[in-house]
Amino acid sequence: MSTAALPGFREFYPEDMALRSWLFDRWRDVARRFAFVEYDGPPLEPLDLYTKKSGDEIVDQLYAFEDKGGRAVALRPEMTPTVARMVAARAQALRKPVRWFSIPQLFRYERQQRGRLREHFQLNVDLFGESDVAADAELLAVACEIMRACGLSADDVRARVSDRRILSALLEGLGVPSPLLGVAYAAIDKIDREPWDGLVARMSAAGIPADVARECLSFTKDSSLDRVRQRLSTAGRAVEFMERMERYEELLVAHGVQDYFTFDLTIVRGLTYYTGIVFELFDVRGDFRAICGGGRYDNLLRDLGGVDLPALGFGMGDVVLSELLKARGRAPDVGSGVDIWVVADEGTGWREVIEATAALRRMGLSADYVLSAEKLASQKSNKQLDVARKARARYALLLSREESATLRSLTDAGANERTRVAAWLHASSAQEFLEATGDEADGLRALLRSRVTGGGTTDRPRG
Amino acid sequence: MSTAALPGFREFYPEDMALRSWLFDRWRDVARRFAFVEYDGPPLEPLDLYTKKSGDEIVDQLYAFEDKGGRAVALRPEMTPTVARMVAARAQALRKPVRWFSIPQLFRYERQQRGRLREHFQLNVDLFGESDVAADAELLAVACEIMRACGLSADDVRARVSDRRILSALLEGLGVPSPLLGVAYAAIDKIDREPWDGLVARMSAAGIPADVARECLSFTKDSSLDRVRQRLSTAGRAVEFMERMERYEELLVAHGVQDYFTFDLTIVRGLTYYTGIVFELFDVRGDFRAICGGGRYDNLLRDLGGVDLPALGFGMGDVVLSELLKARGRAPDVGSGVDIWVVADEGTGWREVIEATAALRRMGLSADYVLSAEKLASQKSNKQLDVARKARARYALLLSREESATLRSLTDAGANERTRVAAWLHASSAQEFLEATGDEADGLRALLRSRVTGGGTTDRPRG
Repeated sequence: MSTAALPGFREFYPEDMALRSWLFDRWRDVARRFAFVEYDGPPLEPLDLYTKKSGDEIVDQLYAFEDKGGRAVALRPEMTPTVARMVAARAQALRKPVRWFSIPQLFRYERQQRGRLREHFQLNVDLFGESDVAADAELLAVACEIMRACGLSADDVRARVSDRRILSALLEGLGVPSPLLGVAYAAIDKIDREPWDGLVARMSAAGIPADVARECLSFTKDSSLDRVRQRLSTAGRAVEFMERMERYEELLVAHGVQDYFTFDLTIVRGLTYYTGIVFELFDVRGDFRAICGGGRYDNLLRDLGGVDLPALGFGMGDVVLSELLKARGRAPDVGSGVDIWVVADEGTGWREVIEATAALRRMGLSADYVLSAEKLASQKSNKQLDVARKARARYALLLSREESATLRSLTDAGANERTRVAAWLHASSAQEFLEATGDEADGLRALLRSRVTGGGTTDRPRG
Repeated sequence: MSTAALPGFREFYPEDMALRSWLFDRWRDVARRFAFVEYDGPPLEPLDLYTKKSGDEIVDQLYAFEDKGGRAVALRPEMTPTVARMVAARAQALRKPVRWFSIPQLFRYERQQRGRLREHFQLNVDLFGESDVAADAELLAVACEIMRACGLSADDVRARVSDRRILSALLEGLGVPSPLLGVAYAAIDKIDREPWDGLVARMSAAGIPADVARECLSFTKDSSLDRVRQRLSTAGRAVEFMERMERYEELLVAHGVQDYFTFDLTIVRGLTYYTGIVFELFDVRGDFRAICGGGRYDNLLRDLGGVDLPALGFGMGDVVLSELLKARGRAPDVGSGVDIWVVADEGTGWREVIEATAALRRMGLSADYVLSAEKLASQKSNKQLDVARKARARYALLLSREESATLRSLTDAGANERTRVAAWLHASSAQEFLEATGDEADGLRALLRSRVTGGGTTDRPRG
C-alpha cells in the first residue's frame, strides 16, 4: 500500500497495543485507589487556548489550522489549558479538593529527529483546591505507586524533589545577586549535561563572581536536607520552605514511598510555571529522559483566566516509561493467546463446537475454534490442536459425541482431564459453573477463577 | 474563561467519562471473549488515504490541512483505510483469520445541526481471511453479546439482516430490469422514511412499471426467509445465497443470539461497499438512528491497494448507544464514590490516617481522607463523616488511639463493626488481609472481595 503512516505517528499492532493497555490499566488502577476520577477533553481545541498563555516552544510546535467554519484550531499539545477551563466552568459545584486524571493523546510537530515522535499519550494527574503540603505528598505518592505497580522499585527509579524558593534563598545566601538568579537557574539546569567550566564561565560573564558560581554548582549538586538546613539557619522565609520540605518527607514515610525520595536542588523545572515543590522521576541508571515531571502551580488557573484555586499535578508519558520497562525486562508477557480452544473430535461438528464456545464465552473466558465449517469438518483433532498451539491457547477442549469432553493443557503436556459437558454447557455464568462442578474440571475451574478474580486488582490482565 | 470548546466537541466530566469507560469496558470484554485483539492507528493520516477511495461524503467532511512539513493531512473520519493498510503490511505474517478490534475517536466536519457532533468514538470489529458464513455469524454474535452485556435484550434491540444479492435476484424476479436495480435500492432504502406514492412515482419515472414498483416495496417490506425462498425457487445463484442465509440463522442459534435476528431486505447499506450479508442494529421502538452497522466487504482490501483477503466488520458508535442506554434506564449508576474514607478519631492524626489509607490502597481499595493536615487536626470525626458522605464513600474507617478501629457503613446506618487495625495495616495485599482476618471485619472483607473479584468479568466497575 502506497500511503504509509505519517512520520512520528505510531501504529499500535496488537502486541504494542497490549503493552499500552497494560500500562493504561496500571495508571487507572493506581489513580482509582487514590480516589482520582477520570475526565477527558477534546483533542482539537481553539488555537487561542494555547497562544494566549502557553510557552513559545509549544506554540511553535502546534498542529494548527483553520477548520471549514473559519475557526483557528489546533490539536492539543498539552492538557492543562483544557482541564483549567473545565474546572473553572464548574468551580463552584465541584467538591474540593478536586482529584482528576486523564490519559490524553498529545501532539507536537517537532522538527524531525530520528525516532522522535509527534504524538504520545500522557497521564495527567491533577489536584485542585488544596494548599496543604499533604497534597504535594499525595501527588508524589501516586507517581511512586505507579512505578511500584509497574514493577519498578527504588532501585530502578528515583523521584528528585526540589523547591525553587529554597534554591533561590540558598543562591542568594551564597552571594548571587537577586537579578542574576535566572542565570544561575539556567546553569544549574545543565549541571549534569555540560562541563562545569563552561557553566561557571557563563555565570561569571553575566556578573556572578567565578568562585560564587562554582560554589553554587557544587553546593546544589551535592546537597542534603541537613546541609541545606544548616546553611539556611538565618534566612526567614527559606526556613519556612525547608520545614515544608521536611514535613513533605515525613508524609512520604507515612505513604510508604520514602524510598523513592531524593532531595535534589538541581531539578529546575518550568521556570515561570511552578510555585512550590517540584519533582521529576528518573531511572537510576540515567539512560532515559525523565519518566514524569510535576509540582505545584498555584497561580496557573488564575493566570489562564479561570478561578483562583491552588493546584498541583504531574504528567507521565507512555513512551519513556514503555522503553524503560522493556530495557529493564519488566514489560509483561502480553503476547498470550486465548484461554481455550474448542476442538471437534469423535464426529462432533460445528454445532457442538459453537455451542461449547458460546458457553465458555458467557462464563467470561476467551474462546476460539476453527472458524471455517469446511475446515472444521475436514481437520482431524490433531490438526486443530496445532492451530490452537499456534494461537497460543492455554487450554484445548476436545468435544466428543458422548456427554463428556477432554480438557487438555497446552502449556503443561501431562495435564489432561475429563469433564462433563453438561455442567458447563448450560451454565450461564462463571459463578454458576463453579457452583455446579465438582473436582472433575479442576483445570477449567482454576482458569475460570483466575479470569474472574484476575489474581488481585493490581495485576489484572486485560487480554 | 473566554475560550470555550469547539462546537461539536465533547468535554467528558468525570460522570460522563465514567459512562464512557463503562461502555468501553463492555466493548473490550466481549471482544476479548470472542478472541479479538485490540489495535490502534494514528488519529492523523495522510489526506490521500481517504481521497483515493472513500466516498465523496466523507471527503467533503474531512478535517484536512497542511502540516508544517507541507504534507496534506487529515484527522481520521473512519478506521477502515488505516486497518486495511496495517493488515496489508503484515498480511503474510498474520495468523488467519485475523480478529482485530479498535476504539478510535473519529472526526467529521458536518454542517452544524443542533446537537450534531463532529467527533465520536466507534468500536470497529473486523475479521480478515475467512470467507465461510461462520465468520458472518461470529461477527453478528459479537454485536449481539455487546447488547446483552449492556443489559439490552431482544425486546430492546434487533439486528436487521439482509444480503443485497438476494434482494437483486428478487427484484429481477419481480420484473425490475437489471440496469434499474440501483433505482429500486434507493427507493427501498427510504421505505420507512418517505410515503410510498412518492417512491413509486420516482421508480416509475425511471422506467420501472408502477405495479412492479409497488410490489417491490410491499414484498421487501414484509418478507420472511420462507416467503423469499418460495419466490426464488427457480433462480440459481439466488438459491445459493438463500441457503447461506439459512445456514447463518442456524449458526446464530448455536451462538445463542438468534432472538436478536430479523431477516429484513429493506436494509440497503453502502451500495458499493458491501459484498454479502449486511446488518444493522436498531432499537425496537425506532427512536434512534442505527446503533451499529456492518457486513461483508470481500473486495475492500484489494480495492484499497492492499492484499486480497476476504473481510467483514462492523462499527458501533458511542453516541447512539449511550443515548439509548440512558433513555431505557439501563445506564449504570456510575456516580459512586470511593470505597472507604479514613477518619481521625480519639486523638489520632495525619500520620495514622495516611498509614491506614496507604494500607487500604495497597489492598486495591480506593481510599480518601481529609487531605489538609490543618483541617484533619481541627475537624471532629462527625464533621469528617459528613465530608465522607458528601464524597459518597461506601464505608468510613474511624481510627482511635488503641490498636482497633471502627468500620462504619455509610449506606447502611446500622452496620458498625470493630476491627483490629494491626491485621490490615500490615497486610501488603488483599489476599494477605483476607487470610489474616477472621470474622471481625466482615464488612471490609466483603468490600475487598467484591473489589478483587468484581462480581464477574462482565460486570467489573472501573471506578
